[in-house]
Amino acid sequence: MIKLKRKGAKGPEEENLRELLERSRGSDPGPAIGSLESVEFRSTGNVIATRKGARKPFTEVIAANIGDAQAMGQKPITFLRQVSALCLYPDLLNSPEFPEDAKQKARRLLAACGGQSVGAYSASPGIELIRQDVAAFIQRRDEGIPSNPENIYLSTGASNAIVTILKLLVAGEGRSRTGVMIPIPQYPLYSATLADLNAVQINYYLDEENCWALNTEELRRALVQAREHCQPRVLCVINPGNPTGQVQSRKCIEEVIHFAWEEHLFLMADEVYQDNVYAEGSKFHSFKKVLFEMGPKYSRSVELASFHSISKGFMGECGFRGGYMEVINMDPAVQQQLTKLVSVRLCPPVTGQILLDAMVNQPQPGDPSYQQFSQEKAAVLGALARKAQLTEEIFNRAPGIHCNSVQGAMYAFPRIELPPRAVQDAEAQGQAPDMFFCLKLLEETGICVVPGSGFGQKEGTFHFRMTILPPQEKLEILLQKLSQFHAKFTQEYSQRQL
Amino acid sequence: MIKLKRKGAKGPEEENLRELLERSRGSDPGPAIGSLESVEFRSTGNVIATRKGARKPFTEVIAANIGDAQAMGQKPITFLRQVSALCLYPDLLNSPEFPEDAKQKARRLLAACGGQSVGAYSASPGIELIRQDVAAFIQRRDEGIPSNPENIYLSTGASNAIVTILKLLVAGEGRSRTGVMIPIPQYPLYSATLADLNAVQINYYLDEENCWALNTEELRRALVQAREHCQPRVLCVINPGNPTGQVQSRKCIEEVIHFAWEEHLFLMADEVYQDNVYAEGSKFHSFKKVLFEMGPKYSRSVELASFHSISKGFMGECGFRGGYMEVINMDPAVQQQLTKLVSVRLCPPVTGQILLDAMVNQPQPGDPSYQQFSQEKAAVLGALARKAQLTEEIFNRAPGIHCNSVQGAMYAFPRIELPPRAVQDAEAQGQAPDMFFCLKLLEETGICVVPGSGFGQKEGTFHFRMTILPPQEKLEILLQKLSQFHAKFTQEYSQRQL
Repeated sequence: MIKLKRKGAKGPEEENLRELLERSRGSDPGPAIGSLESVEFRSTGNVIATRKGARKPFTEVIAANIGDAQAMGQKPITFLRQVSALCLYPDLLNSPEFPEDAKQKARRLLAACGGQSVGAYSASPGIELIRQDVAAFIQRRDEGIPSNPENIYLSTGASNAIVTILKLLVAGEGRSRTGVMIPIPQYPLYSATLADLNAVQINYYLDEENCWALNTEELRRALVQAREHCQPRVLCVINPGNPTGQVQSRKCIEEVIHFAWEEHLFLMADEVYQDNVYAEGSKFHSFKKVLFEMGPKYSRSVELASFHSISKGFMGECGFRGGYMEVINMDPAVQQQLTKLVSVRLCPPVTGQILLDAMVNQPQPGDPSYQQFSQEKAAVLGALARKAQLTEEIFNRAPGIHCNSVQGAMYAFPRIELPPRAVQDAEAQGQAPDMFFCLKLLEETGICVVPGSGFGQKEGTFHFRMTILPPQEKLEILLQKLSQFHAKFTQEYSQRQL
Repeated sequence: MIKLKRKGAKGPEEENLRELLERSRGSDPGPAIGSLESVEFRSTGNVIATRKGARKPFTEVIAANIGDAQAMGQKPITFLRQVSALCLYPDLLNSPEFPEDAKQKARRLLAACGGQSVGAYSASPGIELIRQDVAAFIQRRDEGIPSNPENIYLSTGASNAIVTILKLLVAGEGRSRTGVMIPIPQYPLYSATLADLNAVQINYYLDEENCWALNTEELRRALVQAREHCQPRVLCVINPGNPTGQVQSRKCIEEVIHFAWEEHLFLMADEVYQDNVYAEGSKFHSFKKVLFEMGPKYSRSVELASFHSISKGFMGECGFRGGYMEVINMDPAVQQQLTKLVSVRLCPPVTGQILLDAMVNQPQPGDPSYQQFSQEKAAVLGALARKAQLTEEIFNRAPGIHCNSVQGAMYAFPRIELPPRAVQDAEAQGQAPDMFFCLKLLEETGICVVPGSGFGQKEGTFHFRMTILPPQEKLEILLQKLSQFHAKFTQEYSQRQL
């Protein structure tokens, strides 16, 4: 929960609020906080926001725009921080306040650091021991399907690894430019990176009527069209979905893999929300596991990179910037280029690597930390599951708001109906209609969500993305206030003449 | 000190050693460690290295190729780690083992973090409080010349900020490509980034006969030549120098600033070694301070970006990936682009930001941590100063090795004479002659230094770069062994017929 105070009355405020939302839209989530600061919002104190002397109808801004769990009050998992603190300040290894299993893990990690210190550079692909631990973690997760540490590259958060892979795969000019298929709605990292790399963004639309499912017929439509003007080479999938919160079925993953195989596409599986699955009947299936279970025809040929992060899940350790990718079936010459590309930069932050190791190497039954760790983890995931359900329920009681089941991840992406007059007014002001709605919402209620237009949506539909991260009692208020505001907004604009 | 064990006898080893050095050359320092690992070196245990069953004439590899202080045994500064550990694991705020000033600093920093946690994202340019602290630090360093937190951008190490600025400034195709002037010898980050960005690298040569001084006539020669095929826009200066270890005089800095002013060049001042000044009579002068002291003609117009890092100095906290840049006189429209560019990525690691803050906000006389902090800092810098002098002395006693004074930074870049027959043999093998020398050196003595050809050098001269980081007793052995090896190498190749 971020409580915001505006410092005195200054500047053209609406401009600032717009800037805030536009930035949130453009790239998530840093920029939104950045622009909060740049518009002189301050994140301290439960103070009434004022503007030009006028009292606002809300007492605090509820930021539901950013997938930043700890900023919203989620407590860090004790064990992860204990291992990190022990590595950072090894004098603590003598402290009776720290459990023995955390100490053991810290000693083992320190022994793998240059000079036994987290202050030394690691190898560019990450500390070898941690790459081994990540491989072992993946192997356990995928019930024995082998994982090779040589295929694991640690990274500065998943986003860094995603950019690296895109950079590796993208080439060409004009009609031979690389085309990269991304879901719409998408996480804006993809569109921003593709623009930066001069690649062609190929949109495939998720099926909102079918809980944002991924449909291979839609994949084929997008691919066939794209072939006319570029060379499609890559297919990105986000599962569980951001911003859409769906969890792909196993059958759907199989179809996607078959499609990638058939069309010789490199598969990028953004699986950073793999621990965030809530809905009954939903289960996370890793692309890798499904790939291997489909048999050698696929498992020996489909190229895959899968991404994971310590920023999401039950950890929410965004600030540590830790993550990894695993590559499968990559052409050895290309993988050599990847290793080169990774080696040009210095290492990912060692503190993030350490915390990643604690995440992939969790306390086991019988370990001193096991009970507390398990309770904390279950509490975080349990609360998220309750909030996911709450979000869907409250929104779907509101006329004009349609919210798919939040099966996983941390977001709802509800569709909102907007009166024609509101659409007209927005367009007259050069604004996307859902941006117009979100700005009014923020102005009047202090609720900060992100317009769907920044993620992409079907022409003529309007959405917003919000996180389910605020504490439950705040989230309930938010959901109700937002529903009420939408009703009022709809009524007001419906009464006006077109 | 890294002690290396080769695992059994495997593979074409010479190939591996070459790979090791080639990577060290290409980008420093991560890759070198990376390739150490990839060739199955292991960094544990003081074990005799063997190859194809044969006993090597050395018992450990002495890695002097990487500017990684803690990997070489330098102890972290207690205060920096205390503040970091307190922020990471706030339960420690109740521990009597931690000094009150570290606790105060940690509380203040935590209050500036989202949700009071280092696990939250910060703003993309960094935590605002830390940007303020950095500005105050610069202002103190520059004796009152004002610094504006809005011009401070925190980064994932200095290298990340350097790449960002180059990305911002580089544009164009063909003859309108941006030209960037860099010193030769240079730190390979520059050449690698310029190649990646499709910019033109404009070499200006440092004056080895004059202790690697920067000469504006040479700058002008390089600029005039470059104008024929590109648009020179940027001038990079590394002071104190990497790999050359010189410290620029104030007069020289003034001349460079005048040159940049005259030629409308954007100045990039890589000042990450600003705390590493050892030679009598040498002093670090920041480009910013000199710029402002030269009067408004310069201080209001010359565009400057200065870079600093927690990886070097007395801290040596490479693994935390922390740093910052300050930009001065940047065109507001360009700076807006910079802010946008920074906002596209998520935040720099918060743990690195925290440690950076502890560095710019050091204990003051009267603070509980002051004495220990001052002692530790002085011990690190004092040891480096002694080792700098030792390096110069021992090398200059060796016939055929010429070593300029290591006035600052962490490196010596001695020139070596190589017999014509050795040069011929190297070339016959497709190797740069100094690479040939460094490989033989590693093979026979276990000493790992980096060939000068990777940094650039005047045609027909040969160098290597080595760090002065090994503990003094090891460094002495290294210097003597290296000198002896060079004498033996010279003798052997001189006796052979051409």
